Amino acid sequence: MKLKVIIPNSGMSKETLKERELMLKSVAAKETEISVDCIEHGPESIESNYDEILAGKYIIDKVINAEREGYDAIIIYCGSDPAIAAAREIVNIPVIGPGKISMLIANDLAYKFSILTVLDQTIPHDEELVRKQGIDVTRLASVRSINIPVCDVRNDMEKTFNTLLEEGKKAIEVDGAHALVLACLGMAGMGKRLQEALKIPVIDPAFLAIKYAELLVTLNLKQSKKSYPIPPEKIRI
Amino acid sequence: MKLKVIIPNSGMSKETLKERELMLKSVAAKETEISVDCIEHGPESIESNYDEILAGKYIIDKVINAEREGYDAIIIYCGSDPAIAAAREIVNIPVIGPGKISMLIANDLAYKFSILTVLDQTIPHDEELVRKQGIDVTRLASVRSINIPVCDVRNDMEKTFNTLLEEGKKAIEVDGAHALVLACLGMAGMGKRLQEALKIPVIDPAFLAIKYAELLVTLNLKQSKKSYPIPPEKIRI
Amino acid sequence: MKLKVIIPNSGMSKETLKERELMLKSVAAKETEISVDCIEHGPESIESNYDEILAGKYIIDKVINAEREGYDAIIIYCGSDPAIAAAREIVNIPVIGPGKISMLIANDLAYKFSILTVLDQTIPHDEELVRKQGIDVTRLASVRSINIPVCDVRNDMEKTFNTLLEEGKKAIEVDGAHALVLACLGMAGMGKRLQEALKIPVIDPAFLAIKYAELLVTLNLKQSKKSYPIPPEKIRI
Amino acid sequence: MKLKVIIPNSGMSKETLKERELMLKSVAAKETEISVDCIEHGPESIESNYDEILAGKYIIDKVINAEREGYDAIIIYCGSDPAIAAAREIVNIPVIGPGKISMLIANDLAYKFSILTVLDQTIPHDEELVRKQGIDVTRLASVRSINIPVCDVRNDMEKTFNTLLEEGKKAIEVDGAHALVLACLGMAGMGKRLQEALKIPVIDPAFLAIKYAELLVTLNLKQSKKSYPIPPEKIRI
Amino acid sequence: MKLKVIIPNSGMSKETLKERELMLKSVAAKETEISVDCIEHGPESIESNYDEILAGKYIIDKVINAEREGYDAIIIYCGSDPAIAAAREIVNIPVIGPGKISMLIANDLAYKFSILTVLDQTIPHDEELVRKQGIDVTRLASVRSINIPVCDVRNDMEKTFNTLLEEGKKAIEVDGAHALVLACLGMAGMGKRLQEALKIPVIDPAFLAIKYAELLVTLNLKQSKKSYPIPPEKIRI
Amino acid sequence: MKLKVIIPNSGMSKETLKERELMLKSVAAKETEISVDCIEHGPESIESNYDEILAGKYIIDKVINAEREGYDAIIIYCGSDPAIAAAREIVNIPVIGPGKISMLIANDLAYKFSILTVLDQTIPHDEELVRKQGIDVTRLASVRSINIPVCDVRNDMEKTFNTLLEEGKKAIEVDGAHALVLACLGMAGMGKRLQEALKIPVIDPAFLAIKYAELLVTLNLKQSKKSYPIPPEKIRI
Repeated sequence: MKLKVIIPNSGMSKETLKERELMLKSVAAKETEISVDCIEHGPESIESNYDEILAGKYIIDKVINAEREGYDAIIIYCGSDPAIAAAREIVNIPVIGPGKISMLIANDLAYKFSILTVLDQTIPHDEELVRKQGIDVTRLASVRSINIPVCDVRNDMEKTFNTLLEEGKKAIEVDGAHALVLACLGMAGMGKRLQEALKIPVIDPAFLAIKYAELLVTLNLKQSKKSYPIPPEKIRI
Repeated sequence: MKLKVIIPNSGMSKETLKERELMLKSVAAKETEISVDCIEHGPESIESNYDEILAGKYIIDKVINAEREGYDAIIIYCGSDPAIAAAREIVNIPVIGPGKISMLIANDLAYKFSILTVLDQTIPHDEELVRKQGIDVTRLASVRSINIPVCDVRNDMEKTFNTLLEEGKKAIEVDGAHALVLACLGMAGMGKRLQEALKIPVIDPAFLAIKYAELLVTLNLKQSKKSYPIPPEKIRI
Repeated sequence: MKLKVIIPNSGMSKETLKERELMLKSVAAKETEISVDCIEHGPESIESNYDEILAGKYIIDKVINAEREGYDAIIIYCGSDPAIAAAREIVNIPVIGPGKISMLIANDLAYKFSILTVLDQTIPHDEELVRKQGIDVTRLASVRSINIPVCDVRNDMEKTFNTLLEEGKKAIEVDGAHALVLACLGMAGMGKRLQEALKIPVIDPAFLAIKYAELLVTLNLKQSKKSYPIPPEKIRI
Repeated sequence: MKLKVIIPNSGMSKETLKERELMLKSVAAKETEISVDCIEHGPESIESNYDEILAGKYIIDKVINAEREGYDAIIIYCGSDPAIAAAREIVNIPVIGPGKISMLIANDLAYKFSILTVLDQTIPHDEELVRKQGIDVTRLASVRSINIPVCDVRNDMEKTFNTLLEEGKKAIEVDGAHALVLACLGMAGMGKRLQEALKIPVIDPAFLAIKYAELLVTLNLKQSKKSYPIPPEKIRI
Repeated sequence: MKLKVIIPNSGMSKETLKERELMLKSVAAKETEISVDCIEHGPESIESNYDEILAGKYIIDKVINAEREGYDAIIIYCGSDPAIAAAREIVNIPVIGPGKISMLIANDLAYKFSILTVLDQTIPHDEELVRKQGIDVTRLASVRSINIPVCDVRNDMEKTFNTLLEEGKKAIEVDGAHALVLACLGMAGMGKRLQEALKIPVIDPAFLAIKYAELLVTLNLKQSKKSYPIPPEKIRI
Repeated sequence: MKLKVIIPNSGMSKETLKERELMLKSVAAKETEISVDCIEHGPESIESNYDEILAGKYIIDKVINAEREGYDAIIIYCGSDPAIAAAREIVNIPVIGPGKISMLIANDLAYKFSILTVLDQTIPHDEELVRKQGIDVTRLASVRSINIPVCDVRNDMEKTFNTLLEEGKKAIEVDGAHALVLACLGMAGMGKRLQEALKIPVIDPAFLAIKYAELLVTLNLKQSKKSYPIPPEKIRI
């Protein structure tokens, strides 16, 4: 099985992409091949609807290529699932949105969950995301931010972890969360430690997306073409 | 007052743009100036999430320009409100989504409304739109299609009108609609005739958007920067 | 265009009515005539369901007269929209409820809004109002009161403004509001100053209602007779 | 225990009121006294929001009197519960709305219920009623009408019953109802027969209201003054 | 009328059962006979889904017996309504869940209610209960616990009352409750005192269930067999 | 990894259990061991809440044993997820409800789904199930039945398949489903063929549950102890 991971951040180095590949391989089945790539142009990170629009076309380019190159499934490596509906329309292989599936699994394991996001200003955006997932919005306990921009999340991992821990505690004690979802894929790898410290499920979307892609491919499942129909032919200059 | 109307369809002729301007002027206040423009590149019409992604960047370019050029408000001339959230983030003047405001006004005038859309395959897309508007989704009676692509809607106006009439009747009699919303701005101008024939309010988003833009500008209202914060500074290559 | 504004408070002086007329004219189009009137009998202000019932018949009397006198639209000048459904049934011209349209426009401009009401004891009433508007109730961040009775709201304007400012701040910081709605039309004129101070949209229903009436009349829109059917003929002694 | 039943229809004869008293006594406890009265002025029946407004003040007059005369509870004898919120504010004894409690009990006994109403044009009104009761609106299977005006419901009882039977069957087979609610108190007495014929619970609000009033009085329960606060003192001319 | 009360707690003494009988008789009609029984095996109290499963079969045994013995209605004497759906399927007499009917009546008397439960760890369970009752979940102000296990609730009645009072006050002042529901039938008898102290309706499910059983039996109402169909014949070893 | 599959049907032969094991192995990872067992006593199939109660205790017995025997995860092999909440409380390894996770994954892949159930009389039960899963209930297009009892589903596989096909088509064309969920685990293996015929995703819960169990175990995820706390110590005779 071959999985394509598309990071909607421009300008990532080959080394970093390789590192992500290795990290994700750690949870994959032996026979799963993972190829991590980033977009050619667009914003260096996704922190607004504006960023999502700028990244959109470049994500789609990579999505179309991945299908042509014979990949079995595509992961858009961002908690906001940018361009996910368009991607699901344009190809016939499963396209996974780590944000959506993370919330759904949180909702299986717990009655109420909170989301830990990067910035105060991405809180409203993430609340709106929940409303699009088909989940009853009263299941969301809260969205809390660590106030660290995406590009800095992995700079000082200890600081990031400690802030996640602090906000996670408040989500449990003040807001009544029974599970947590990491909103930013840059937080990948911190879920496990956080879960051990907080004693509630913490969904780490990066790894969940890999296992979920394997699940879909093995079971021969993909997005419905009734929900995501093939776009009509037309001039697109 | 100067209003910028951005049509997210590429390749429109100057004559057509001029025609739209004249049509829209007919409901505007005397002192309102209207400038209609279309996107430089992208799809010739919006009929999918894919089209919205392709049009996105070019819509934003026009939006930024419009603010620079001193316009008082911007209308994204499409019932799907493509790129609306990004546009509302990136400028400090009101950005109007004809789709959203049409549903809200339908919801003021009637307990239940139906949407008349272009294609069978845009029905699910339009149902999802309703869920994003803050409206209780049980207020939607139905979405029905006329099965005429956007680019053909204005080719045979009589055929378009008759199909709208037929589907509108079914929306009322079968689905229980108390008001109708035209989903495609290409249907502009048919609302009035439809309303006379069907005896229920028909929201014609093109004209509503103009009057609503005037309302917002006069009252000094615009989108909240808490909901649509200014995107953080970063590299966007 | 001739607009009739009906204030559901009894015993207002001609001077006060004239003052309101002048105030409202300030946002109206030049060609719009505004006539402000109050009810002949009933309570001096609306602060309960009881007041609404007492005012009801007198509002309807004025509504019927306004249609007979050739007005183009009617505004029931109160944030509770008393007798609005009955009024919309009994006439064939648009009847505007400032409360409902204010919440809908707040919902267009922001993901979440709070309402600023007069008394602690009107908070539950205003929460129920939201549930009747077709809006998803989870969009309401909070209702907060200034604890000043309707009849005193305009006595010490500075005090009223300062309390609105204080509660508005709490609505934003504690409750997460992205926009504010003034619940009482007696607060008319304070929206603008509040908006400047708080940097989020503040809906001032008095002025919004005027511009919205103009919008409806220009676009030839009014309430649906499917939602608000003409009452059957019968004995009404 | 003394119960006051207020029928919001003007002009009823003493005989008819007496008849209703006897009918209602049939389900009451031996020690329960029932006094049935109608409003002094207002419409002869309630079939619109307009009728509710016209009847409002006269209902309230009777409500205030009933408390003064030492009644233990008040029933506003109409499925629309007109003036119920005002009545609950203005007195300190329980005020029962047969419409609301009927829907709540239907919701206890069944997952989904339909409402049988008088006229096609009261269907939207009754759907809106459901939304005010705190019930999840997706529990409503449908509202169906028998197309017989309130004043004629008891003229040809056999015709009324047969139409109720016919519409009740459709509610079950077409709409998926598991229980039925009679919307009009004029249908009183037909619930039992309908239930026997259709084999699902049929809520007959007139009788339910009596037993529910007894329940509340015995348990010393009444409406919350947090939800229905006493109206502030003021001039009400 | 003969009512069967089944307490889903094993090992209760005859004296205690007798005491409950006397207590419940105090609100019953003179002609109502009440027989209180407990389950033969299973947990000594219900404080988890696990307890409900263990008690389930023994509740059903008693339910089937009660119908055979000619009882007119059955009350499952627990705020969690354990095995209620199964019980409603298996017999043809009304089965009352005190939890569900308490929430529905709270919802009639007030716009918002809180639940007072036994343990911190039963809070999520009780929140889930609300979601099953057909009530709009935004009507729930909060669930608060007194942190006293079911088996100790009646040991130190003064302590229990004082803690209920304290948490009830917080429910009103902090969470905005307009009415309270006691979640545990062990709290029976404290509702009245609590109501007097807090001045809002307090639903005491034990007594409500008795009066509601009388109401259903008198009106010849019971659960719908469309919602609770008779289980198909099969081998059940 | 060792998975325990517990079928809540009594009296299954060793051969049948072995067959299920082989069938499920077909989608499992090579290193996954699957052990299929059925309950010792209780109903031969689950078709009512009554069956769920009877099976409950025996399911829990097997669940507790499975944890003791060192299994990594447990699947309760039934679309109704009987005793799932109790099972999740009583052990510290993941317990999977095929019904819940099937609906959540259907909700990831499609905007609207229908459920295909066994009997007309299980339709209401399955509709209620959806309401417990945290999913917005308006995402459910319909529940349709094939009218074949659980015990006969695998007797005439061709008949079962054809009826599923027929009802699946109606779900798509009449009800607007974009994906299907098989409600009964006895339908295992028919999802694939159905999906090929109907061209929309069909969730086959038996296989999905295996892959989802692997996903949870690999990612070290399990149910939240905040949602499913360990039951308090007590006498359970």
